[in-house]
Amino acid sequence: MSKKIGIVGASGYSGEELVRLLGNHPHAQLACVTSRAHAGKTIAEVMPQLRNTKVAGLKFVDSNAAELAKSDIDIFFLALPHGVASEYASAFVNAGKQVFDLSADFRLQSPAIYKEFYGQDHPAPALLKNSVYVIPELCDDAWKKSKLIACPGCYPTSILMPLIPLLKGKVVSGKGIVVNSCSGVSGAGKKLAEDYLYCERDESLKAYGLPKHRHLSEIEEQLSAAAGEKIIIQFNPHLAPMMRGIATTITVPALKKGSEALYAAWQKTYAGKPCVALLDSATRPDTGHVVGTNRVDISGVYDERTGNFVLTSAIDNLLKGAGGQAVQLMNLYCGWEETAGLL
Amino acid sequence: MSKKIGIVGASGYSGEELVRLLGNHPHAQLACVTSRAHAGKTIAEVMPQLRNTKVAGLKFVDSNAAELAKSDIDIFFLALPHGVASEYASAFVNAGKQVFDLSADFRLQSPAIYKEFYGQDHPAPALLKNSVYVIPELCDDAWKKSKLIACPGCYPTSILMPLIPLLKGKVVSGKGIVVNSCSGVSGAGKKLAEDYLYCERDESLKAYGLPKHRHLSEIEEQLSAAAGEKIIIQFNPHLAPMMRGIATTITVPALKKGSEALYAAWQKTYAGKPCVALLDSATRPDTGHVVGTNRVDISGVYDERTGNFVLTSAIDNLLKGAGGQAVQLMNLYCGWEETAGLL
Amino acid sequence: MSKKIGIVGASGYSGEELVRLLGNHPHAQLACVTSRAHAGKTIAEVMPQLRNTKVAGLKFVDSNAAELAKSDIDIFFLALPHGVASEYASAFVNAGKQVFDLSADFRLQSPAIYKEFYGQDHPAPALLKNSVYVIPELCDDAWKKSKLIACPGCYPTSILMPLIPLLKGKVVSGKGIVVNSCSGVSGAGKKLAEDYLYCERDESLKAYGLPKHRHLSEIEEQLSAAAGEKIIIQFNPHLAPMMRGIATTITVPALKKGSEALYAAWQKTYAGKPCVALLDSATRPDTGHVVGTNRVDISGVYDERTGNFVLTSAIDNLLKGAGGQAVQLMNLYCGWEETAGLL
Amino acid sequence: MSKKIGIVGASGYSGEELVRLLGNHPHAQLACVTSRAHAGKTIAEVMPQLRNTKVAGLKFVDSNAAELAKSDIDIFFLALPHGVASEYASAFVNAGKQVFDLSADFRLQSPAIYKEFYGQDHPAPALLKNSVYVIPELCDDAWKKSKLIACPGCYPTSILMPLIPLLKGKVVSGKGIVVNSCSGVSGAGKKLAEDYLYCERDESLKAYGLPKHRHLSEIEEQLSAAAGEKIIIQFNPHLAPMMRGIATTITVPALKKGSEALYAAWQKTYAGKPCVALLDSATRPDTGHVVGTNRVDISGVYDERTGNFVLTSAIDNLLKGAGGQAVQLMNLYCGWEETAGLL
Repeated sequence: MSKKIGIVGASGYSGEELVRLLGNHPHAQLACVTSRAHAGKTIAEVMPQLRNTKVAGLKFVDSNAAELAKSDIDIFFLALPHGVASEYASAFVNAGKQVFDLSADFRLQSPAIYKEFYGQDHPAPALLKNSVYVIPELCDDAWKKSKLIACPGCYPTSILMPLIPLLKGKVVSGKGIVVNSCSGVSGAGKKLAEDYLYCERDESLKAYGLPKHRHLSEIEEQLSAAAGEKIIIQFNPHLAPMMRGIATTITVPALKKGSEALYAAWQKTYAGKPCVALLDSATRPDTGHVVGTNRVDISGVYDERTGNFVLTSAIDNLLKGAGGQAVQLMNLYCGWEETAGLL
Repeated sequence: MSKKIGIVGASGYSGEELVRLLGNHPHAQLACVTSRAHAGKTIAEVMPQLRNTKVAGLKFVDSNAAELAKSDIDIFFLALPHGVASEYASAFVNAGKQVFDLSADFRLQSPAIYKEFYGQDHPAPALLKNSVYVIPELCDDAWKKSKLIACPGCYPTSILMPLIPLLKGKVVSGKGIVVNSCSGVSGAGKKLAEDYLYCERDESLKAYGLPKHRHLSEIEEQLSAAAGEKIIIQFNPHLAPMMRGIATTITVPALKKGSEALYAAWQKTYAGKPCVALLDSATRPDTGHVVGTNRVDISGVYDERTGNFVLTSAIDNLLKGAGGQAVQLMNLYCGWEETAGLL
Repeated sequence: MSKKIGIVGASGYSGEELVRLLGNHPHAQLACVTSRAHAGKTIAEVMPQLRNTKVAGLKFVDSNAAELAKSDIDIFFLALPHGVASEYASAFVNAGKQVFDLSADFRLQSPAIYKEFYGQDHPAPALLKNSVYVIPELCDDAWKKSKLIACPGCYPTSILMPLIPLLKGKVVSGKGIVVNSCSGVSGAGKKLAEDYLYCERDESLKAYGLPKHRHLSEIEEQLSAAAGEKIIIQFNPHLAPMMRGIATTITVPALKKGSEALYAAWQKTYAGKPCVALLDSATRPDTGHVVGTNRVDISGVYDERTGNFVLTSAIDNLLKGAGGQAVQLMNLYCGWEETAGLL
Repeated sequence: MSKKIGIVGASGYSGEELVRLLGNHPHAQLACVTSRAHAGKTIAEVMPQLRNTKVAGLKFVDSNAAELAKSDIDIFFLALPHGVASEYASAFVNAGKQVFDLSADFRLQSPAIYKEFYGQDHPAPALLKNSVYVIPELCDDAWKKSKLIACPGCYPTSILMPLIPLLKGKVVSGKGIVVNSCSGVSGAGKKLAEDYLYCERDESLKAYGLPKHRHLSEIEEQLSAAAGEKIIIQFNPHLAPMMRGIATTITVPALKKGSEALYAAWQKTYAGKPCVALLDSATRPDTGHVVGTNRVDISGVYDERTGNFVLTSAIDNLLKGAGGQAVQLMNLYCGWEETAGLL
């Protein structure tokens, strides 16, 4: 029942988390990792954190979509830039492989919105009908029939999980939503740019990407689908002086007053879900409490002065916000325990 | 023309900044620092950062309002907890001294609001008529006649400075304002609580004080006065893993569309002001760029998708947000250069 | 074959790591956690990082040595202050329980040295003959007969592991050893002291504990035993602005010149050991690469200009330096895989 | 009596500190800053920290040694890479300008040692006889006759200041000196290399540059000159997760026992020096206490167990370790107050 796994594009921070998780997974067998930059080197050489692990000696190979599609690998994870992932996704889906894509290529159903936010034509619009965007706690099991799973982005996960049950339950309004998020620096990836040098980011906090960060497209598409109407939000992302973690704070007008309705809607969706913790209304999620886990912590409070709810969530951007959620999806797809390999 | 200065309650982080600034001021002579905990010790012993400075050997004394009121000190700075400051303020004002109070005791004109937010009766309501709340760039010179200056809080400074010119100029609406701020840990003061230990705050970001942080009272009173109508806002403060700095992001519905009206209103108020920098609409303030200065950096962008402005500001919470602004006020009061001793 | 486990004094940073590791261990069943401060609360309440884990709902109980000794718990871990641990150790050993003690009470064989370094009489000198100090990679299997295992301190682990094989192999001299170590702040425990506040330790590095840190006693006793002669070293510990990790740098006169002899001695001791990685002579251990693991990274270089070796090591002070090594010892004691539960 | 100042190569971290200090100096007039990368931009654009300062609008110009040599600038500071600085130094010295060079080009008197440590022929050996290496507290006034002042490196300043008075006074031995230093990341300059990304250095401490860091050449040349014999030391530098600061810990065999001799030698050299603080033998220098200042904090303790002194020092690597010391030298050269512009 074990599956053979390949990771394509495994050299960034998300890729490294995937290698760590899949290299130690009880049911999955990590058989292949690709990286143009690191081909020929071992995992231990490229990722010193993984010295002495079971996969320490596995060597990176150069990536070739056609050849990989012919291999005996069952499941591929794509940790590639947008625009590049689709080539691999096409080859793998055509060859009958299961694909979990961490890029943005299949997160949007609309090629026009893709072009607006990513500045290029969608590289494989024909595949969009085969793909499905999945936050596992928010979807019924139909997604498991798809060969191409679009794994959500980090900011979207932290925003959609608190909001979607409330929009579906008509607990909150879809108008006037304001989202502020603070992300650790790993969210920017392993980019050699002055802005990401230690001395530039240490002791430094700032907004960026205003007013139209790329993740906005994905957030609004999902919120609109949940609400059954077009939702437009204000999304203000920030860079914070820490390695990992996203803390999101959402101000949203209440349709039902008081925190009971809020928690009732959340309980209905999330009760018993192993990767969600609902904190009481007086306790705030703290990124320090979720870093290293695949958990999202959520709480909310009703403000009778303004008539708003203030919703707060925290995730590890590289786990529940990226590789951890992808492994959670694989677990569910394969019928394994939801949190296998995710402690 | 030099003035003799006393600092009452000089042992916290704000007090330490005051000692540093006033101990090296070109026109002021720091003559007295008080602290119950440190009486008898020198400044260098308590504040090792100030070894070898001009005031390194000055000794802390115990504080006695009546005795200090009889001294030859011209100007007192109060860096005391709320509820305690007013006793000193009363004695000093009665003795004809000039007082710059960094506590919350005289920031609110309404004793009822004080009680609502600070949980106790106002300790000196009769003095409120003598006191005046001053952000110097936002007030005309009338405040200089007052003997009791209430120095604004850190969050309020970062919020009022972007908003007040826009409310006065009818550039933005007073309804639907959402403020998110991230503060460095020094904002909590030098408190021995588990929440402020290094290992609890390092790599950790969280909201707190929802939905009714104490500073909200002061912010709304000032916004309401500026707008000429009652303003209620959503204020979401956060603790970020850094020593100093506040980054504030404000979402506010636009009455006049486009960034021209925004910058015109700001220019009218802030052109030529040495402690304000207006950044262009595409550049975001960064706490790392203002820490160690008495400057506020401000920018804003119009979002045509939502019809909102997103305003961003950054300050050093201990300087423009506390001791630096108090020294700026003293400079203006005394007729000295506005930034004397504040580089 | 599963064992029932109790942790006594589980509320500090080391205790929390033990709870995390043992709460998720494949063969151990965490049955009891004690803490006077937290009795009655659940693990999730006290350690929010552990929300939703298998042991999230387990409640802390007050600790009573006599009662615990009568329980059906097989193995106790003691995460208590020195001087307190021995009371529990006595009761448990007398009741036939297996004890892994993380305190300093049984690390020294000499009660006189204990008194010199810890400032009090040894609380249970009679038990010393039953106890054994174990770094598992450096001991033969005889220790498994002991009911009372003294788990090494964090600094000692990082120092003894590079040095002992070299002293035994006469590769280095025992005279003139100089050790410098930098520790993350969690090494000081969860103490409410001004020195451990975020704003005091952030961006701040300093030596402390000179010239006679408590761990020196344990280090020198073990080095002397390995060398067969009295060894005196210079030990300079430092506090660094990070949560976890110890980086140790040892300067030691070479008896055999060149790095070949160095690595040969290390290989002989550590080849195939899953918790030790020997890096090549040009690569330095980095705490960032071992944090979250139970691994020690070691390398060394010969300096022909001075005739010294410079040895470097890095560990996670709370894992290989504390709770992780204790679990490794339990695994070996119980005949389980050495790294079970220790990824 | 004011002097016109030029800074050549002002775009790195040391250059930025020079711009900040000289742009606000009471007697110096910053007239020219050069940078190939930033020519045409203002200081405020390149160094946002300096918005609204007196020099915010000064524009960077491209650098041309011959043209600059013909200008009316009195004093040049060179913040250039080694190998490049000497071209400018030659042109400026020939034109009668005063030069303070922060590069390594004139720190060594021996071209052979320069080649050994810097891997290239010395670019201007003829100029070496005109240059002088100056730590101001350790030199008599003869250096003021030189037109070309070699400003010491950051590690060397932190090491030479504690050691030289002790070697001169025969308080310590020149044999068996072991130096460990921890530096903030700005010590590496503003380099776009993966090793200096935020996520690589945050929460991470490691040794590097073993066993023969470039600064060793300069340290040993100066120690040997002071001791009157060839001194060879072990120098172990480390990178610590902080922006600024160097903490140095030196183990050195005592010739005179006890801390009295130690402090007597230091007092003789440093009493009354405004940029040196001698802490008592039980207090350790902390980088957090010197960052932002031009001060070096020094203390030491005698270890009767080993017969060694352990000396500790702390500086801000960009101030007393670079630009601050250069300004201190300019102040002394020009006959101004030693700490003018150096709070």
